[in-house]
Order: sequence, then structure tokens, then C-alpha cells
Amino acid sequence: MFRKTLCALCLLTLGSTITCADEGMWLFNDLPTKHLKERYGFKPTEEWAKHVRLSSVRFNVGGSGSFVSSTGLVLTNHHVASDTLFKLSNSERDVAKDGYLAKDHATELKAPDLELNVLAAIEDVTDRVMAAVQSLSADKAAEARRAVMAEIEKESLDATGLRSDVVTLFGGSKFHLYRYRKYTDVRLVWAPEADIAFFGGDADNFEYPRYCLDVTLFRVYENGKPAKIEHHLKWADKVLEEEELVFVSGNPGRTQRLYTVDAFKYMRDVRNPYVLNFIRRKEVLMQQFGLGGIEQKRRAQDDLFGLQNSRKAYMGMLGGLQNPAIMERKQRAETQLVAAVRQNQQTRELATAWADISRLQKEKASTQGTVSSFRSRLYDIAETLVLMAAEDQKPGTERLREFRDSARESLEQDLFSTAPIYPDLERVKLADEIARLVEKRGGDDELVAKVLAGRSPGDRAAQLVSDTKLFEPATREAIAKGGSAAIASSVDPLIQLAKIMEPELRAYRKHSEELAEQERQAYAKISQATVAIQGTGTYPDATFTLRLAFGPVRSYQENGATVPAWTTMGGAFQHETNHGAKDDWKLPKSWHDARAKITDSTPFNFVCTADIIGGNSGSPVINRQAEFVGIIFDGNIQSLTSNYLYTDEVSRAVSVSASAIREAMRVVYGADKYADELGK
Amino acid sequence: MFRKTLCALCLLTLGSTITCADEGMWLFNDLPTKHLKERYGFKPTEEWAKHVRLSSVRFNVGGSGSFVSSTGLVLTNHHVASDTLFKLSNSERDVAKDGYLAKDHATELKAPDLELNVLAAIEDVTDRVMAAVQSLSADKAAEARRAVMAEIEKESLDATGLRSDVVTLFGGSKFHLYRYRKYTDVRLVWAPEADIAFFGGDADNFEYPRYCLDVTLFRVYENGKPAKIEHHLKWADKVLEEEELVFVSGNPGRTQRLYTVDAFKYMRDVRNPYVLNFIRRKEVLMQQFGLGGIEQKRRAQDDLFGLQNSRKAYMGMLGGLQNPAIMERKQRAETQLVAAVRQNQQTRELATAWADISRLQKEKASTQGTVSSFRSRLYDIAETLVLMAAEDQKPGTERLREFRDSARESLEQDLFSTAPIYPDLERVKLADEIARLVEKRGGDDELVAKVLAGRSPGDRAAQLVSDTKLFEPATREAIAKGGSAAIASSVDPLIQLAKIMEPELRAYRKHSEELAEQERQAYAKISQATVAIQGTGTYPDATFTLRLAFGPVRSYQENGATVPAWTTMGGAFQHETNHGAKDDWKLPKSWHDARAKITDSTPFNFVCTADIIGGNSGSPVINRQAEFVGIIFDGNIQSLTSNYLYTDEVSRAVSVSASAIREAMRVVYGADKYADELGK
Repeated sequence: MFRKTLCALCLLTLGSTITCADEGMWLFNDLPTKHLKERYGFKPTEEWAKHVRLSSVRFNVGGSGSFVSSTGLVLTNHHVASDTLFKLSNSERDVAKDGYLAKDHATELKAPDLELNVLAAIEDVTDRVMAAVQSLSADKAAEARRAVMAEIEKESLDATGLRSDVVTLFGGSKFHLYRYRKYTDVRLVWAPEADIAFFGGDADNFEYPRYCLDVTLFRVYENGKPAKIEHHLKWADKVLEEEELVFVSGNPGRTQRLYTVDAFKYMRDVRNPYVLNFIRRKEVLMQQFGLGGIEQKRRAQDDLFGLQNSRKAYMGMLGGLQNPAIMERKQRAETQLVAAVRQNQQTRELATAWADISRLQKEKASTQGTVSSFRSRLYDIAETLVLMAAEDQKPGTERLREFRDSARESLEQDLFSTAPIYPDLERVKLADEIARLVEKRGGDDELVAKVLAGRSPGDRAAQLVSDTKLFEPATREAIAKGGSAAIASSVDPLIQLAKIMEPELRAYRKHSEELAEQERQAYAKISQATVAIQGTGTYPDATFTLRLAFGPVRSYQENGATVPAWTTMGGAFQHETNHGAKDDWKLPKSWHDARAKITDSTPFNFVCTADIIGGNSGSPVINRQAEFVGIIFDGNIQSLTSNYLYTDEVSRAVSVSASAIREAMRVVYGADKYADELGK
Repeated sequence: MFRKTLCALCLLTLGSTITCADEGMWLFNDLPTKHLKERYGFKPTEEWAKHVRLSSVRFNVGGSGSFVSSTGLVLTNHHVASDTLFKLSNSERDVAKDGYLAKDHATELKAPDLELNVLAAIEDVTDRVMAAVQSLSADKAAEARRAVMAEIEKESLDATGLRSDVVTLFGGSKFHLYRYRKYTDVRLVWAPEADIAFFGGDADNFEYPRYCLDVTLFRVYENGKPAKIEHHLKWADKVLEEEELVFVSGNPGRTQRLYTVDAFKYMRDVRNPYVLNFIRRKEVLMQQFGLGGIEQKRRAQDDLFGLQNSRKAYMGMLGGLQNPAIMERKQRAETQLVAAVRQNQQTRELATAWADISRLQKEKASTQGTVSSFRSRLYDIAETLVLMAAEDQKPGTERLREFRDSARESLEQDLFSTAPIYPDLERVKLADEIARLVEKRGGDDELVAKVLAGRSPGDRAAQLVSDTKLFEPATREAIAKGGSAAIASSVDPLIQLAKIMEPELRAYRKHSEELAEQERQAYAKISQATVAIQGTGTYPDATFTLRLAFGPVRSYQENGATVPAWTTMGGAFQHETNHGAKDDWKLPKSWHDARAKITDSTPFNFVCTADIIGGNSGSPVINRQAEFVGIIFDGNIQSLTSNYLYTDEVSRAVSVSASAIREAMRVVYGADKYADELGK
């Protein structure tokens, strides 16, 4: 009985005490070596961990990847690359849809604004951060924390030249400084067609069995030449076996396993329904836009894919939260934990944190849906320019976090990007965003009147997009250089609009940051109390930083049948036939042309129990020898609740196998020379 | 100056004083004969009006049509017929998509639950209704009004055997008794393919120029034989000319031209945004369901079409309401009117009505989005059975309106319909509706707990659909027959669910009816005051009852170019080519096969300035001789604001021309024998 309760506690309250199965997104400076040793007889050495860490790559667009050759080749998912593939496409050449294969180094296509990060070092700076905020009120603490973090980052950047980010861990009880080697000259080598990268489309997404070649190959350059990479993954020659232990090294985006019941209820009743409404709204908007013609469809595709993906993920999460059985278990575990915290003299004072979180959820609910900014690329540029001009007047430690000195290079790479911006798409997006402001605040609102300037949202957006000069990177650079004087004198209507919205945005951000600070303080207490009650050996919630997960390759049960751990390349053709070779189930011509050369039995996609979440997309899957055996690209539908709880019963991480990647490159795409580079 | 202000008043406040252009959805017992005479030199005789009225048909699914032969042929839109076409389809035969042509009477397909109404007589019963409600409080007045209406209807039904409905007009200042001849044996004769009925799909919807054969031909039967129809429309032989006066006789669904500024603001800030969120949610749900396969796509199609159509219509309406210029004009006009009402001794006391409406909008806003029922066919059946059992214990005058004696036959035709119900579709719909309840009330709510019964919305819906027996019409009939005892002892999970929801539903309906009663009383005053100030000769807001609209066939200006009044059949092929003959722009095979026989110059679709709205779909367009010249199927995008204001500048009603219908029937569909019947 004790075991079961403990297990429920671990699964449902924290998920951070390693007792059950293979839960965990582990810090590279605190790996679960004892557990691995006991359960799998495997002890990762420091050398092993360092090699894996330095072979792992973070994509600034929100994904992961790995070095797979000494010649700078980086493998990630097609859907992680898609932002770049879209930016490299136009009405004549659609590499996002049709794929791409470089002939030679000269035809490897430079990404306009991609940044890759390799985690070079981790340093614990908790004491310094904590000392700076001690006994301050929430608003002062938020400022002080921001300041000390910016200071640490700036010092680190100046000292090492490396990108330096202070990361908040365990809900705010630990702070680590992460130093990254940065690559900004990233070039496209090979991408397959969207039809095979996303075979089965939105319908198959988050489903399993699956048949997707969701990969893209980039190469990083330094000084105009392919970078020489010391730490890269070897290619595994051995085929995977059922129950074989594998590791996933990547950057899970965000989990909420430390959350209290009240925080879950806020997500269930307020946050997730709101987000879903927002997503559906944008999904319908982009679909309607895409009906305008073939080129419109292409322009909407990247957004649309992301929206549909998020919608399905949020539906899964919300469905789990709306399940009374799950919530009851969570409640029971929390009640036990809080009782234990109250009974323990050492932790008693920390028990108030649960009530603090409860109160904060209500405050968050009251400002849910505030519209203080507009989601459009052009507006985002205008807003960044307006904020930057004001922020740059202040010392680096007092600025909004994205304007700190240590982040300036990355910010400018994005701000001055030459990626195309489409006026028709921007117009439709802005019109909808302005309409959303009107809906939120009501048509009689003063700010609304200023924003509309006497026009309907559609007419106003048309005017803004037709009159702005922000399409040109040179214009943006000139305004950025001109600073606050340039902003003050600008007649650009989008700059003027961003100025109208600025007070609203600043007030909202200040309020949000204060709430976040209070949450950090409360969760730091909860984290501390939980460790005191349940013992150490835990991992923090995901923060889009490098983590190691692990677990065996393993089949599972669904509707009374076994879902095998693997699919095969031959199975892809069967899957196409089963769906009438229609809509999203049409394999590309290249695959049909190569049909005879494709080995039916080659493992295509496979599942394992490793604990992953969005952001892990593109993460290498490696074996005990740290060899590349596959690449994460999805979770099954049962895994969609894993941002607040992990189970290994039926929840699975889904990968493309190394063997399918190499075989496809050789027999379908004629990319032998790159296949030859893999692992070398 | 005076003229312009008056014009603004007429356009924007009421739209009911005929001063500008050809505004108006006129009652058949109060036609604008003076205006027609003065402006067009045409005086509709009583004979003319009677003939047109009796040739016009209302479809209970929410559309219009007309008798086009003495042999019972009824022409309507494909999109009005689509509900029936869908019900007549299955996985083997998809008449909704592929069309249908009966070989003979024996193969004309009987619609499972279609009811057609022909307006036989109108009687003013205002005095009797008003006498019954005089000086009662809102809740008592609502009850008394419902009672007297049911009484009048029952008396009329008993006396004449005709369907009898009391209609509320002018916001509640007039009540007319409408008696309808009813046809319930309606059979499908001919429908073209969806690809030409809805050529251009969602993208072209509400756009012009247009190329749609949006028609379907039914035949009404009596005693198992084709009905003999005395009043039917002749087919016009002459081709229409620009500026030719035409009339539209149909059933506009709902307009809100009498609404006050505060009511418009409620629509702008509360109602329409809410409805749009709801529509988008269901649109995404149905799209996702349709991805399940070809048969799922077919099952979702009917709902999906309706949702996309509504979404586009609401977007247009909301865009207009969010235009500050329009709202300011409306405000100015109202301010003038209210000032005049206050200054006039005769009307002074009525001026409080505007404040009453204002208060009521706030009350409506506070219950916006209440979930007291679930939108699914199965649940609707369960709910109807549960309510009916309780209502039937009461005298007819005290029942909820849909259970009054005079409406019983129509209710049962729907309740016991043999139309197919798809378990997979029902499951998805119910899951979403239950999730919507959870979202609205929060997961901790007591009613939510009862509804979920410990499961997630998806699991609960799956259980409900798998365990219910309500798929079978015989089960429904047995429960209906068993009355409250059958309901009390039912173990059907959907009946039990409807019982759980019943108190909530009844409370919500009671509250809504009280608010509606107060609105009726206030709008009755506003209507009275306006007539006193602006004079008589007005039309009431649309109520899905028969009205006559009129106006010339007329081109219009858009983006500096003239949009011609006509398109041609040849133009359809050009339109296909312009869109790459892809997606929704693929003409059906039948059209390509008949290409050589189709006369390029035959007018296909055309526009006129007649004042129409949703519900007018399928309305016959006739000339001065009351001959059929076309059939309404859409409004252009500029007409989408016409539920609250009419203009004839660029707003247009869109029709299929009589000549295109006849030509297509002859040369594309080989339906000569039915074409020969037209107008005969």
C-alpha cells in the first residue's frame, strides 16, 4: 500500500522523486546515475555526459538537434526546420513543401535568422541570485532578480564571449548560469518533401503507428567554412531491440509537474480553454487565407501547421485535466503532502505557499486574455523598436529581459532578418488582432478608438500594412540606430501604433512579472518542502534547456491490442494504400520512384518510454555507447498529458530511426555523399 | 441637408420608413404599393400578390422556395436542400455530393422529415394578444402571452386544419396569425453535384462574380400522388435586362434594424464575438472529424458547410459593427430620434424604452454562453422526450412553445424521423459539448460532476453513445407514448443526462423568456414612437415569414471597377481555369462532358438590389408579370451588414438565372422531361 501511495505521490504531485519507472528530464550536472546503475546496470561517466552534451544542439526556434558529423552536419526535425524552410521559400521555390538537396557547399542555403546553441558550461549561481532578492517585496524582488541575472549574464559574456543565460529551476529555488557556444551561420543541406516528413498530416499527428521522415539536415559554418566539430554522434550500426535502453538529449520546453491542484484548476478552467479558443480562431483565419490561392496556401502553411499541432496538444492536455479521476488523485496526493509539510517542524512555515499559489491563480484569471500587443511579424518589429529605444536609455540591469546586453546579438539577428514578410498575410493577421482588441475591451474603449482611428479593423490593418516601411531591414536598422529620437519623430504608422499600445504593454508586463515573481517564491518553498519530505534526487520542470531522459524501446497496449514498438519503411506504402492514397496520405513521387530499392523491413519510426515534451523535437536518441539510433519527433496521443504527469504505461516518445534516415538518403534522395558523412 | 439626415435615419435607425431606394422586407398584407407606383410605375394588384404568396414555399429547415409547375415541382437552393440530401445519403450513395436525377415518379426519393409551408392566410390578432398581457409583470406577461398565442393557434388549427402560428412583428407591437398549408410528403427529383452547386466553395461564398447552380428540385405529394398546384410560377422566356425591376418572395430569417445603439453594442462586444468563437470551435471540430476518412468527411460535410457559411456571415456583421464610422452614424440618428420622441407630448412617455433596452443588454451579457443543453442530434432527441413528458401534463396554453398542440405534428415528424444518426459523429459532438460545459462552469461545479460521472468528457460521451437506444425511431416513439412514467423509469443514459440538465435548462429558458418579453415591450414602444415621429408605411424586422422585397437588376462598383450584373455559363469554365481547376474550383465531369453543348453567353448568376437576408435562400425572383426569372442563393460580401442596415450602393442579392437552370437541366443533366414541366 505504501508503495502505491508513494508512487501516486511521485507521479502526480511532483514527478520529481525518482521512484517509479523512467520518469525525468534530468539536468546534465545532476544525472540519475544511481537509478541508471541499479535499474539498467549502466553508469554514465562524466566523459560520456560531456560528449553527449556537446553533441546536442538547441534551435532558437524552439527545438533540438545534434551534431552528426565532424564536418558540421546538424540533424533536426523537418518541423523544427520548417520556420527556416518557409523563410527560404518563395512563390517559385517551395523547399518547405518540395524538399531540397544541396549539390555542394556552394548551394547549401543560408538560413536568414537561425541560431543554434551548444551548452558549453553550467554554473550554480543560486546563492548570488537569492542574496539579491532576499526580503524584498514582490515588485522590488522581480526587479532585483532581473538585475542580478542580467549582471551575471553580462559578466559571463564579457569574460567568455559565450551566450550566457541564467536559468530558473525548481520553480525558483535554484538558478544556474548556462553558457552556450552559438552558431549563426547555419545552412540547409537536405530536406525531404513535406508529404513524407508529415505523412498523414494533422490526422496522424500525435498518433502511432507512424511513418514520417521528419528530418532535415543543416550544416553550421564558421568564418564562411564548414565548422569543425569535435563532439558529434557516431551513427549506430546495430539495429535497435525491444527493451533496449535509449537516451534522449534535448531541450524539453515546459512542464508543470510542480504545479499545485489550484494551478491545475486554473489551467483547466481558465488558461487552456482560453488558449484553445485563441488557437482555433487563428487556425480558421489561416485556413480561410489559404483559400485565396496556391501562393496564399503556401504562405499560410507554416503558421497553420504550428496552430494545428498546438491545438491537438492542448486538446489532449485539457482532456486530461477535465478527467475527474486524474484530478482526484492529484488532490489526494497534495493533501497528504501538505499534511506532512505541516506536521514537520522543519517545513511547517513553508505550507502557506499552497494558499499563495491559490490566490495567484485568481489574480492570473482576472487578467486572462488581456490584449496588449498584436501578433504579426510587422507589428512585432515595430514593438521591438519602440521598446528598445526606451530600454536602451537604461542600464543593462534595469531593462526588460530581452533587451539585456548579453542577448543583444540574438535580438538583432531576428530584428534585422531578411526573411520575407508577406503584406497580404500581415494584413489579415493584423486585422484579426485589432478585432480581438475590440472584442476584449469593447468598441467604446478609449484605447480601441485610438487604435482603430475611425476605421474598421480590416480597413485599419490594410492602411497600416500599405503605409509602413518596416518591410525593409534597412529601415529597421536605421530606426534602431536612431534610438528614441528616431522613434519620437517616426511617421511610420506601425511605429505610431506600437507607441499607442506601449503603456498598456508595459503595465501588463509589470503586473505579469510581479505575479510570476510571487509564484517563483511560492514554488521555491513548495519545492524545498517537498524535497524535505520526500528526499532528494529530483529533476526540475522543463525550461527549454538541455536535459537527459531515458527509457527502453517498448511496445504498448491500446484497445486490447499490442502496438508494436516499430514501424517499417514498407509499412509506409501499406499505410498509403489503407488511406486511399488521398489527401495527406500520398507518398511523394520520389518514394514511389524508389519503391523497388526500399527495403520493406527497415525500421522507420519507433517508440520508447523516455520522458519528453514539446521542445524535445529533433533530440537525438542514443544508445549506451552514445551512438545515434534515432531522432525524436513526436509523442503519442496518450503522452499529451505529460506536461503535468508522466506515466510509462501507454505514453510513448516517437522517433525516426537512424536506419530509415540513412536508407532514405541513399536510395530515395541520392544523397549518398551526405549519408557518407553521417557519424564521421 | 434635411434630406440627408432623414436618409441616415431611415437607413440606420429603423430602416422602416420607406424614403431611400428599395429598402424593405414587406408584409404581404401591407405592400408598399404607393412607392412601387411612384418609383416604378407598377402597382401590384391583390390578385398578383395572392398568386405570388401562394406560389411561395417555406422550408422548415430554414429556407425558401417556390412552386414551379402545376404538378407539384418545388425549386429551392441546393444548400437549402442539403439537410435532406445529406439524410438521403449514406456511405454507398452520396446524393449531397454527386447529385441525383429521378428516372420517374417511383424513383423520386422521399425526404425523411422535410416540411413545406404555403402561407394561406394572414389575420391581425394584435388586440387579443395585447389585451391578455396588459399591465402584467414581465414573468406573468411572458406566460400570458404564450398562453394566448397557443390558444389562438389551437382554435385556428381546430377550425381550419391549417398549421397556425402567431407571429410577433415590429418588435412586439403587432401580432399576426399566419395559417399555412403544409406538405410533409416531399420527394427529391433532381439535384446537381455539390461541385457546381457550391462552385468555388467557402472561398467564393459571399463573393461575386459567381458561377453556382445552387438549385434542387423537389416534388410535393398528397395521398401518395403528385400534388396538383393551382398557384405556381410561369417560367420567364425573356432574358433579364440591366435595371429591370424584380421581386423576391421569400422568408428572410432575422434582421435587427429596429435595434437601439446599445443593442448593437451588445451584439458587437458580447453576442457576435461569442457566437464566432462557438462557430470556429465547431468548425475545427468537424474538420478534424472529417480527417478520419472519406466516410467521416461525408458525415461532417453538412455541418461543416453550415458552420463555414455562418462564420463568414458573422465575420461580415461583426466587421460592420466594429466600424466606428457606422456606429457613430447610428448613434447620431438615434440621438435625434430620441430627442424628437421626448419633445413630442404624444410620445414623451415612450422615451424610457431606450434605457430599458440598455439595461436588458447588460442582463443578457451576464448570462451569455450559459450551457444548459448539448448540441447533438441524440441529445436533442433525449431532451425533447424529457421535456415533452413533463409539458404534456399541462394544458396546451401553459406549455413551452414548441409543445403547443398546434405544433405537435411538426414536432413528431422531426422527433421520429428515420434520418440516419452516426455514432462516431455524435460521440465527437457530445464530447465537445460536455467539455464546453466543463469550461463554462469550471471542473469543480456540481452539475459538471453529475454530467461527467467520474469520466473525462471524451470517455463520458463514448459511453453515452454506446449505451443509448435512441438511435431507433421506434424506441423514441415508445418513450414518447409512455410519457412521464417512461421517462421516470428509463435507464437510457441520454434520457438520464437530459433529466440531470432539465432544471438548468428550464431556469435558463424562463430567464431568457422574461428578458425577451421585456425587450418586446420596450421595442413595441420604440416602434410606436418611431411611427409617430417618422410616419407610417413601414415593414417589420424579418421573422422567417413571407415577405416581398424588390429592386432592379444592377451592376456595382468595387475597387474602382464595375462588377457586371451578370455572369455567364461560359464564364464558369474561365473561372475554373483561373483557379487552376483545383480544390473547390473543379467543375463536375457532367459539365465538361457537355461543354460543347453549353451556350457560353447564357446568363448564369445575376445581382439585384432587393433587400434580403439569410432565410431568403431559395426565394423565387420574379418579374412584373410574376414570372420566374431566377432564384436567390446568396448576398455579396458587402451585403453582410444588412441584418442591421440596408444600402443599395454596393450591397447585392445574388441569384441563379432561370435560363441557366433550364439550360443545365437540358444539356448537362438530360433532365428534359422535368425542364418541360417547369412553368407548366
